[in-house]
Amino acid sequence: MKTLAEAVVHTLKDIYYAETALTKALPKMAQAAGNADLKAAFTHHLAETKEQIALLDKVFASIKEKAAGEKCDAIEGLIKEADGLMKEATGAALDAMLIGAAQAVEHYEIARYGTLREWAKQLGHGPAHDLLSQILDMEKAANAKLTGLAVQAVNVVKAKAA
Amino acid sequence: MKTLAEAVVHTLKDIYYAETALTKALPKMAQAAGNADLKAAFTHHLAETKEQIALLDKVFASIKEKAAGEKCDAIEGLIKEADGLMKEATGAALDAMLIGAAQAVEHYEIARYGTLREWAKQLGHGPAHDLLSQILDMEKAANAKLTGLAVQAVNVVKAKAA
Repeated sequence: MKTLAEAVVHTLKDIYYAETALTKALPKMAQAAGNADLKAAFTHHLAETKEQIALLDKVFASIKEKAAGEKCDAIEGLIKEADGLMKEATGAALDAMLIGAAQAVEHYEIARYGTLREWAKQLGHGPAHDLLSQILDMEKAANAKLTGLAVQAVNVVKAKAA
Repeated sequence: MKTLAEAVVHTLKDIYYAETALTKALPKMAQAAGNADLKAAFTHHLAETKEQIALLDKVFASIKEKAAGEKCDAIEGLIKEADGLMKEATGAALDAMLIGAAQAVEHYEIARYGTLREWAKQLGHGPAHDLLSQILDMEKAANAKLTGLAVQAVNVVKAKAA
């Protein structure tokens, strides 16, 4: 890769792979979560993730590229971390840690969409920029929701320990 | 792991491993970067990372735990992604992508320190909370600096292509 246009396509394929991988990881996280609100948040984010994949299809189309995924090492590592937690942690501590792992994923996505949006803008890809902004806002909202649940989950842990 | 206290120790070991891994990755990124400001930013962040490891030593001490790292799959994936770029990209596109990869790492760290800080607060670990806040602020500042460089690097790419 030598050009920013090539960097955009490569990074779009990375995040497309990541979102697709999340559609497989989120149901497992929803199943593992003990707290009903957290279970619902993961299930809701699964629906949002599918919506984001459809938006990414539009981004690819807008720059006349074929939508495709390309193995993304970062998301593989982030999901492996969440998988590990589901084996090693239990109860309310598991919930708190699952929220932490999900926020790490959200932050990864926020970083990638922030970068992609900036590149799209610089390359004059207006429609791609707007679609990526829309996805970025969804990820930021999902992260904020998880922060709220983190405080709530931690309070549950404390109440149980008291 | 069943308790939040155990979750804190586990996650501290994860991020300790991550920061240590970064002390090895950042010099490679500084060497690969073409832009002088980006090279300097990576070198500066290497010094900051070493400072953060010293702060994490203090966090462990404040909760009477031995400082130690534990393999963190997420950072392994993030670093593998940066390593891949250094093989696949060249020129100004490499710089733009290196900034993107570094911002993904910063966002990962921001997520982890945000989670850890909240947990420390809930467990009444005042000194640990303050130290973690200090590191979190450093990571946020490093990320903001990279955003500035991203805009600058992209403009360099555009100028060269023009």
